[in-house]
Amino acid sequence: MKIFVYHTPELVPTQSLPDCAVVIDVLRATSTIATALHNGAAGIRAFADLEELQQTAASFALGTCLKAGERGGKGVPGFEMGNSPFEYTPERVTGKRILMSTTNGTRALQAVQKTTVVITAAFINLGVVRNFLKQEEFQTVWLVGSGWEGSYSLEDTGCAGAVAWELGEPGNDETVAACALYGQWQGDLLGLLKQASHGQRLLGLGCLEDLKYCADAGRLNVLPRQNDEGYLVGTYL
Amino acid sequence: MKIFVYHTPELVPTQSLPDCAVVIDVLRATSTIATALHNGAAGIRAFADLEELQQTAASFALGTCLKAGERGGKGVPGFEMGNSPFEYTPERVTGKRILMSTTNGTRALQAVQKTTVVITAAFINLGVVRNFLKQEEFQTVWLVGSGWEGSYSLEDTGCAGAVAWELGEPGNDETVAACALYGQWQGDLLGLLKQASHGQRLLGLGCLEDLKYCADAGRLNVLPRQNDEGYLVGTYL
Repeated sequence: MKIFVYHTPELVPTQSLPDCAVVIDVLRATSTIATALHNGAAGIRAFADLEELQQTAASFALGTCLKAGERGGKGVPGFEMGNSPFEYTPERVTGKRILMSTTNGTRALQAVQKTTVVITAAFINLGVVRNFLKQEEFQTVWLVGSGWEGSYSLEDTGCAGAVAWELGEPGNDETVAACALYGQWQGDLLGLLKQASHGQRLLGLGCLEDLKYCADAGRLNVLPRQNDEGYLVGTYL
Repeated sequence: MKIFVYHTPELVPTQSLPDCAVVIDVLRATSTIATALHNGAAGIRAFADLEELQQTAASFALGTCLKAGERGGKGVPGFEMGNSPFEYTPERVTGKRILMSTTNGTRALQAVQKTTVVITAAFINLGVVRNFLKQEEFQTVWLVGSGWEGSYSLEDTGCAGAVAWELGEPGNDETVAACALYGQWQGDLLGLLKQASHGQRLLGLGCLEDLKYCADAGRLNVLPRQNDEGYLVGTYL
């Protein structure tokens, strides 16, 4: 298994696809996605365009879907849900479809959406992602960080390193570096998130508890996996 | 002092400049530049355009300049010098101007050429670069990797981490990650170069001795620094 890390969706090759793509947006889309599915959401679909999200929401029967959005770390007016995992309680999400649009995570999902197997990873479901990759016999796996508006992000690359750690063979230089990053910080993931510029931005918005939660490696055993309709649904190994 | 690492010239901000820019192309332009200046070259100028390089060469008196070039790791036909540091012996370079064009290093130099202080770094002159940065009181320093045709390169980011290591404050996420990379590999820089995709490419071209030389940290105490005419000249602290 060859593992390729891409720091941002913009760096993903456009002429080929891997056997499996792993989308990572630790702060906070993929942490939130894992939480929502763990808490009983029926499925989550990412939209780049807020208009298209609104139109899709209108096609659902009342009370069966939730609009979730974030722009620059803050909620979208008129949407029921933001991007904090704490909002996605069983009371609110059980059985619901969630239509989501976030600043960075959506772009990463869209960059690889045609891959046969698309899953999402965060620190909180790290173990199940690693077990899945160990179990399957993929030739090539891409780990795609969401970054921040096209820029490198420490937490996504750190999480990519955690997924790739002692698993398979590095496919590119980024994978070697991501593993070194995780190697240094694996004992202090909260410290890594606090050091990250995006983490500092969220701390400025009063989201310390979110950071603590997102740094809690292996807390959930749900594997979000894209189905034929483009929804991420919760699977368990 | 805030230190910002940019993995490639393409990622360098275009709307601002730092107090000091450090250009890094470990394999092999900045290793070669340090070597040539250490061995007595009068100055080195980088050209993106081979035609412009030829025209400039024609303006020099016979025997006072050398044309140096590399494309994809190999020499340019009609140029006296390639990109291996071993070619830049005192016998060949003493007192000479060197006009150089390389695949990646040139672009990095051009991205920051308007900065007041431009220096180059490689592992072989790591100590003098760090001492210079410690001695000066810069507010902002950019460490610019050359990468490989727009892609991340392990050796340049590793060297950026070596320069930034316990020096100043990280200005961006890339700096934190570069330091983690250097932290893991500092005891085995040759291993880092061998692991890098560019290192593997050079090994395929039979350049193991170049890799060994470029991994020999702190061997030279010359600081290449851009002068008002756009030439990198050798300075000593």
